[in-house]
Amino acid sequence: MADWQDIPGGVTAPQGYRAAGIAAGLKPSGTKDLALIVSQNKAIAAGVFTTNQVRAACVDYCQQRIQANPTDIQAILCNSGQANAGTGLQGWDAVLEKAKIVSQSLGISPDAVLIASTGVIGQQVPVDKIQAAMPDLVAGLSTAGSQIAAQAIMTTDLVPKTVALETQIGGQAMRVGGIAKGSGMIHPNMATLLAFVTCDADVEVSLWQQMLRRAADRSFNQITVDGDTSTNDMLLALANGQSQTATIQESSPEAEQLEAVLTEVCVRLAKAIARDGEGATCLIEVQVHGTEDQPSAQQIARTIAGSMLVKAAVFGRDPNWGRIAMAAGRAGVPFDPRQLDIRLGEFVLMHQGCPQVCDRQATSQYLHQDPVIIQVGVGEGAGQGKAWGCDLSYDYVKINAEYTT
Amino acid sequence: MADWQDIPGGVTAPQGYRAAGIAAGLKPSGTKDLALIVSQNKAIAAGVFTTNQVRAACVDYCQQRIQANPTDIQAILCNSGQANAGTGLQGWDAVLEKAKIVSQSLGISPDAVLIASTGVIGQQVPVDKIQAAMPDLVAGLSTAGSQIAAQAIMTTDLVPKTVALETQIGGQAMRVGGIAKGSGMIHPNMATLLAFVTCDADVEVSLWQQMLRRAADRSFNQITVDGDTSTNDMLLALANGQSQTATIQESSPEAEQLEAVLTEVCVRLAKAIARDGEGATCLIEVQVHGTEDQPSAQQIARTIAGSMLVKAAVFGRDPNWGRIAMAAGRAGVPFDPRQLDIRLGEFVLMHQGCPQVCDRQATSQYLHQDPVIIQVGVGEGAGQGKAWGCDLSYDYVKINAEYTT
Repeated sequence: MADWQDIPGGVTAPQGYRAAGIAAGLKPSGTKDLALIVSQNKAIAAGVFTTNQVRAACVDYCQQRIQANPTDIQAILCNSGQANAGTGLQGWDAVLEKAKIVSQSLGISPDAVLIASTGVIGQQVPVDKIQAAMPDLVAGLSTAGSQIAAQAIMTTDLVPKTVALETQIGGQAMRVGGIAKGSGMIHPNMATLLAFVTCDADVEVSLWQQMLRRAADRSFNQITVDGDTSTNDMLLALANGQSQTATIQESSPEAEQLEAVLTEVCVRLAKAIARDGEGATCLIEVQVHGTEDQPSAQQIARTIAGSMLVKAAVFGRDPNWGRIAMAAGRAGVPFDPRQLDIRLGEFVLMHQGCPQVCDRQATSQYLHQDPVIIQVGVGEGAGQGKAWGCDLSYDYVKINAEYTT
Repeated sequence: MADWQDIPGGVTAPQGYRAAGIAAGLKPSGTKDLALIVSQNKAIAAGVFTTNQVRAACVDYCQQRIQANPTDIQAILCNSGQANAGTGLQGWDAVLEKAKIVSQSLGISPDAVLIASTGVIGQQVPVDKIQAAMPDLVAGLSTAGSQIAAQAIMTTDLVPKTVALETQIGGQAMRVGGIAKGSGMIHPNMATLLAFVTCDADVEVSLWQQMLRRAADRSFNQITVDGDTSTNDMLLALANGQSQTATIQESSPEAEQLEAVLTEVCVRLAKAIARDGEGATCLIEVQVHGTEDQPSAQQIARTIAGSMLVKAAVFGRDPNWGRIAMAAGRAGVPFDPRQLDIRLGEFVLMHQGCPQVCDRQATSQYLHQDPVIIQVGVGEGAGQGKAWGCDLSYDYVKINAEYTT
């Protein structure tokens, strides 16, 4: 395992990055709604994108740009308020227009700009407002701008999500930082989320993409809020080489170290998103072991974390382990129910398929912890996996019954 | 298409069936919790069972019994209160014990008795209470007992669900009746539900099973309340030949007619379950067309009907069609988003992938209808399918946060 330490600064903690956030008038609330992240030099870019068939124009755009030229990316512009999904050709034109506006303001090629959006589906982004706000946004770019950028990409999120870690590679400090937003429409492949990660290492292009995909599979693809997969999800990661470490090559100890830090940044952002799920009062971490392989354990963990009945039981501080057993059983992974073990924290509720005598009041009391840890064993196999979710509260319904009207 | 007419009587509408329901003290509420359905002669039985890995003992028992001998079934005993799932060997013994009690009371073989349970997972069924209640239950058997049996299998259901249809086959009246319970943990394969169907036709054994499977795929497997699949689901169907129609053979017009009636009974029960989903204020019917085949259309329909965000939007009477587009897109069925059409009732919200100008207030008003009809087109294909669900309300959370504590 790599060693790392927490540092402040989010996406601007790695060297050579600046960020800014501003209220451009895109949200009725008048809060910040436009974020910009800029690398001082061309960075290597990797991305992971929503698997939804109905994708926002900006998702297609970013995927095409990174496929065409992953080595020349310098800026990410992200707005909240309008998702620019389900907006037809006009939506696509808006993406091109925004890339052009950013490129002109920064004096870089439009091809160096990635575009992201989040908000209400089916609404066009008012590009004129973005154009008008751009001078102030660029003027605000700063090496301390991560927090304000993290605020500007929020929708129903209650808190901005930002993390940065530093590690030593060959005696040289190397940093990875990230910001993310989530809240509703959160489910694996991809969770409804935007996450932007910066890094100052220099990495082989294909290795950077592979690392990001693996990190996503162990973090963002293991969280769920409501089982819905958004039209706009994306995880973008830039690596600009400013740390002056040597180029990181595949199968090296340095690659392993970088991937561990990158994964940790993604896991921290993912957990922050799950904790801040719409209406959530706690984070639920599900740990599954005893499957044949890791994907099977991850699948069971995701299914439990995503079960509405489990989520409602946790909200009610009700140690209803039968629902955990039910959710494990419907995950699509074969196992012998006579080997099923279930724990809530340290409380053993089911062992080898049989209910255990358990102090119901103490167990209910445990459910007031945050996070709530659910441990499930399904056999003797070496496979293990984690997933994260949140409880299901009245406020989830309230938020989602009244979002556009 | 077959002609049929609604008749009263539920599972006791077909000839040769009696039913009863009683309060045996299995539920803390003291309401009816034990139901019995009896055919006067040996009936052909077919069954469809939960796909959950964690299955109640009674599910395994019924499946084994029907596989071993599908032609000699005479009784179905069902209790509510305890699910008898996650109860280990003691749970299995309880099933055998209950079959024995019924067989002794009715003077039939224990092998002629099917057993079903619903209620809290992990609680043992108090067999002594069932033993004590059996004489009264048997004494209460009546050809007018369907309604009271339907009440006795309810858990959080608000209304009993019962239907019966009559058709003419070869100048002879033939009837199919059914009762069902549902409410929470409702999702395809199988939905969390129990449904018992009776029929007085004589049918080839394997044909009866095939018909039931196909009918389930177009009804119970197309409803969703919360995405959870129960440990106890089962659909059992008896055919006792009392209508005196000739034995119905595969690929005959009579088989087609019987299957149409059987499917209609299952669809009516399934819709009644969705409408009575926990906390529901309305039934949602999703109609999808334009896919390559029927299963693809059914899959998209199920995904939309099961989306928490769509369900919450309907509860909020919010015509947020973007969520319908999102849910269609994540169903796992490839389609061209530029061919996406979305209607709420008669209101066209999206046409050929573009948002349409629409009277928001009138559309919101439409969402006060019950049922709410969502129509989605995804292309030019001939495939079409329906699914049913309900809205997501505060009461769903309330009911499920406070179920066992």
